[in-house]
Amino acid sequence: MEAEMEYVAAAPAERLHAFTRTVFEKVGLSPEQAADGADVLMWASRRGVDTHGIRNLKLIYLRMIEAGQIKTDASFFVEHETPVSAQVNGGGGLGLAAACWAMRLAMDKAEQSGMAFVTMRNSHHLGAAGCYPALALERDMIGICLTGYFNPQGTEIGVLPTFSSRPMFSTNPIAVAFPTQDEAPWLLDMATSIAPYNRVVLHRENGLPVPPQWGLTADGQPTPDAQLMKKMWPLGGDRAHGGHKGYGLSMMVATLSAVLSGDWDEGHDDDPAAFNGYKQNGGSHFFGAIRIDAFRPVDSFKRGMDAMIQALHAAPKEEGQDRIYVAGEIEHETEQQRLREGIPLTAVTVADLKEVSEKYGVGLEIGRLRD
Amino acid sequence: MEAEMEYVAAAPAERLHAFTRTVFEKVGLSPEQAADGADVLMWASRRGVDTHGIRNLKLIYLRMIEAGQIKTDASFFVEHETPVSAQVNGGGGLGLAAACWAMRLAMDKAEQSGMAFVTMRNSHHLGAAGCYPALALERDMIGICLTGYFNPQGTEIGVLPTFSSRPMFSTNPIAVAFPTQDEAPWLLDMATSIAPYNRVVLHRENGLPVPPQWGLTADGQPTPDAQLMKKMWPLGGDRAHGGHKGYGLSMMVATLSAVLSGDWDEGHDDDPAAFNGYKQNGGSHFFGAIRIDAFRPVDSFKRGMDAMIQALHAAPKEEGQDRIYVAGEIEHETEQQRLREGIPLTAVTVADLKEVSEKYGVGLEIGRLRD
Repeated sequence: MEAEMEYVAAAPAERLHAFTRTVFEKVGLSPEQAADGADVLMWASRRGVDTHGIRNLKLIYLRMIEAGQIKTDASFFVEHETPVSAQVNGGGGLGLAAACWAMRLAMDKAEQSGMAFVTMRNSHHLGAAGCYPALALERDMIGICLTGYFNPQGTEIGVLPTFSSRPMFSTNPIAVAFPTQDEAPWLLDMATSIAPYNRVVLHRENGLPVPPQWGLTADGQPTPDAQLMKKMWPLGGDRAHGGHKGYGLSMMVATLSAVLSGDWDEGHDDDPAAFNGYKQNGGSHFFGAIRIDAFRPVDSFKRGMDAMIQALHAAPKEEGQDRIYVAGEIEHETEQQRLREGIPLTAVTVADLKEVSEKYGVGLEIGRLRD
Repeated sequence: MEAEMEYVAAAPAERLHAFTRTVFEKVGLSPEQAADGADVLMWASRRGVDTHGIRNLKLIYLRMIEAGQIKTDASFFVEHETPVSAQVNGGGGLGLAAACWAMRLAMDKAEQSGMAFVTMRNSHHLGAAGCYPALALERDMIGICLTGYFNPQGTEIGVLPTFSSRPMFSTNPIAVAFPTQDEAPWLLDMATSIAPYNRVVLHRENGLPVPPQWGLTADGQPTPDAQLMKKMWPLGGDRAHGGHKGYGLSMMVATLSAVLSGDWDEGHDDDPAAFNGYKQNGGSHFFGAIRIDAFRPVDSFKRGMDAMIQALHAAPKEEGQDRIYVAGEIEHETEQQRLREGIPLTAVTVADLKEVSEKYGVGLEIGRLRD
C-alpha cells in the first residue's frame, strides 16, 4: 500500500489562498493571473490532492518563474478559431492561469455553439487537470481536460511505451467531470500511468517508500525506493496486464494536446532533443466543454447520474471493503473536511512556505495540526 | 500469455463479405443495413479482431434476430438535435447498421460545424467499436466511438467496480482514430477492462485457457478456466495496481453512452432489474467526429503523427522485444496479410458458417488454410 504522508501543521484554506495570490502578484503576475493560479493550487489542496496543491508553489511555479522559464507578463492569445474550436498560445506564461483562460474560452464557445474544444501550446504545467472540468459543472456542462507531453529522446523520469525501455511520455492525465444532482460531482482525474509522477516525487521528498508496482529503476528493475524509480508503468503495467492500453491512452492525450495544438512541431533540425526535426516545445493542453442540453434535459441527466452512483454505493462489497466509491467522491469529502479543519501541511511544505514568506515579504501564519 | 487460436480453414474477405450481406438480407434487413452490417463484421475479421468478426454472425446477430430481439425492419431516427449534436434512437435494430448511420450523421454534422457528437439509445451490440472512428479517417477527422452498459443488478459476466464483488459494467470500450500520412492510421480500440469479454468467450468456445490476471470466478478467485471466469478486472486490476482508473473510464463510457443518450432512464418502478426505478434498456453508444482543420492544417497534423510514430519505432526496446508498436499497427498489418491470404477461420466458426449457409440457402465455399 501507498505510504501515508505525515502532516505537522495546518492553515485555513482561505489564508493559504490569499498568501498564494499575493506571492504570485509579488513576482509580477497580473491580479487576474495571480488569482487564477491561487485558485488552481488551492482547489487541489482543499481536495487532498497534495501532489498538485500548494506544495508546488515553490517547488514548481516560483522556481520556474525565478529561473525565467515561466513568463509573468505573458498574454494568452488565439491563433486559430471557429465557433466550436480554438487553438491558442499560452505565451510561455503560468500554465495554471493560461489553462483557466482556455477553459473559460471553451465554456463561452460551448454556451453559444453547444460544445467546444480548445487546444493550447506554449504553456507550462497546469496543476491538477481536474480543476478545469470542474469549472464546467456550474454551467451544466461536461468538462474535459487533457495535458500531454512526449519527448522523443526520453525524459529522466517518465512513462514507458509498451515494449520500450525509454520513458518518453509524461503521466499525461485525463480529467472529465459530469454534473450530478445531490451526489458529489462525478470527477475523474487520472494519470494514464499507474501512479502520477508527482506522487513519486512527493514520496521521495518525504523519505517514504513507493509501491514497487508503480515503476522501475533506470536499469529496468522493480523498486520501492522513490529516489530510484525513474520508469513509470503505463496504466495496466506490462503487456500481459493490459499496459498497452495505458500506453495507448497516454499517446491519445499527447496527440490531442501536443500534435493538435502544434506544440509538437517541425523545424528543429539542429536540435539533438528532436527526432527527424520534430520535438515538443513545452506544455500543451486540451480543454472541452459540452452542454448536456445539446442531447437531453439537464435535470434528467443529473438524476440519472445520482441513480447510477447510488446503485454503485448499494452494490455488494469485495471482502474487507465497506464502501464503493465513484470518481471524485473521496476528494469531495476531503474538501468538506479541510474547509472545516484547514489544509494539513507536511514539514517539507511548511519549510518551503516559510522560505517563500520571508523571501517575498508576505506574512503567513501556520497553525498546529488538529488532533 | 494468451493462447493462440487454431485456424482450420480460410476464405477470401470479399467472399465472406458477400455471404454475410446476403444472409443479412435473407433475414429481412434492407440492402443498406445488410451492407453496413457486413462491412463492420468484415472490418474486424480483416484486421484480425476475430472476437468481433464474422464469428459473431450466428453467435450474436442471427441468434438475436431469430429470437426477435433485434428488429430487422427498424428505422433509426433523431430524437433531439443541434448543429453539433444529436440524440438518436436505434429503433431496436441491428447495432452494426445503426452505429454506421449514427457515425455518418456525426461526420456530416462535423463537416458543417467543425465537430459533432451523437448519442444513440435503443440499439444493440455494435461490433468492433474501432470500425466507426476509422470511417472518420477518410474525411480528415478525428473519430470517436464509445459503447457502454451498466446494470445495477449485475451481469452474469462483467466488469467489477473497484471494491465491489458484483460485475456491473460491460467491457465498455473506448475507440479513437487519428489520421496519419504514411504510417498506418493510429487507431486505439480498447476495452476498459484488462481483456474484452468477447475474448474470454472466444477462448471458452475453443477450449483454451485464459490468462488468470484477466479476472475471477463467481466466487472471486483467480482462474485460467475460461468457463469459470465471470468477473473481469477493470484496466489496472485491483486498487493497488490502478484498477480504480479502469473503473473510472468504464463509468465515463457508460455515462456518455447510456446516461447522455437517455438509455439509462427512470420509470421502471416494478422491474426487479432496476435500482430505484432506473435501469439501462439496451445498447447505447456515443460517436464523435472532429475536423482537424478546426485547429490546424491537416497535412501538418498528419506529418506530426508520422514523426511521433517513427520516434516510438526508433526508441530502444525492452529486453526480449524487437519492435515497439503503436495503436492499430498490428491490426493494419494483419489486414494487408488477410487481404492477400484470406480470412482464417476456427473449426467452431466454420461449423457455424456452414449451418448458416444451409439454413438460409446462401452458398459459401470455404477453402483450406494456406501453409
